[in-house]
Amino acid sequence: MIILGLDPGLGTTGWGLIRAEGNRLSHVANGKLKTDPQAPLARRLAHLDAMLAALIVDHTPEAAACEEVFVNSNAQSTLKLGQARGVVLCAAARAGLDVGEYTPSIVKKAVVGTGGAEKAQVHAMVARLLPGVKIDGPDAGDALAVAICHAHHLASARRLRA
Amino acid sequence: MIILGLDPGLGTTGWGLIRAEGNRLSHVANGKLKTDPQAPLARRLAHLDAMLAALIVDHTPEAAACEEVFVNSNAQSTLKLGQARGVVLCAAARAGLDVGEYTPSIVKKAVVGTGGAEKAQVHAMVARLLPGVKIDGPDAGDALAVAICHAHHLASARRLRA
Repeated sequence: MIILGLDPGLGTTGWGLIRAEGNRLSHVANGKLKTDPQAPLARRLAHLDAMLAALIVDHTPEAAACEEVFVNSNAQSTLKLGQARGVVLCAAARAGLDVGEYTPSIVKKAVVGTGGAEKAQVHAMVARLLPGVKIDGPDAGDALAVAICHAHHLASARRLRA
Repeated sequence: MIILGLDPGLGTTGWGLIRAEGNRLSHVANGKLKTDPQAPLARRLAHLDAMLAALIVDHTPEAAACEEVFVNSNAQSTLKLGQARGVVLCAAARAGLDVGEYTPSIVKKAVVGTGGAEKAQVHAMVARLLPGVKIDGPDAGDALAVAICHAHHLASARRLRA
């Protein structure tokens, strides 16, 4: 099963695709989607949407996951992030994918083993869990981490059902 | 020219369609799009997106407009509104529409003549400017108001060019 992890942002949205077979994880691809800061907001959002739709068609993931948002004290940033996040969740659901949502501390716990881990530790652990991966920047690293977290979660849910 | 006004919200998005011919405005349709509060967030956003896409196909507007957001002191509400707003702006831009954005006080000034007008005054003025309109609740009223504001703005821009 291929899982798409997403780290939404208006300027840069990180994405990471992993393959989960039982408890074995492997890296498929990762990267970032950028929109033009000079373009009008609605165009940027539509561009982000189109890039995501193409990514989903290319890689046919069967599940998606996204971090729950750490709400910022800066309301304008929260609004901006919310707008990008809405488009990202919508694009995944429109493609028929269920989207798992996890808090940052759940993601850290799943990847590193402790909810208070530093970002650098998370990315180092992502690299260990996905041998051969080249992480395309911090947003793609966060996206891979949430995909790993979702893989663990789905595997536990399967074990509970069995 | 048909103009689509939008008042985004996750639970209820108001919409209003008006026809602008020179300085003459008339009402086409208005209403609200509701999503199921029990459904997962990504599904609600995809449902909103699908309803908007259908509305745009049915009525073929040539322009769209949306209020700029009054950022709330409650960060969770701001995030929720941002997510719905992102989907709404994206759906309009994906359909090839430019989306005008106006602050609430600009909308009030365009409709009532003063930026400090009450909501009730705005809705009463919308009803006077669009004879025969039945406004389907406050969100649809706000959507018609921003459509009227955009019509005025486009007419002024045309006069300036002439």
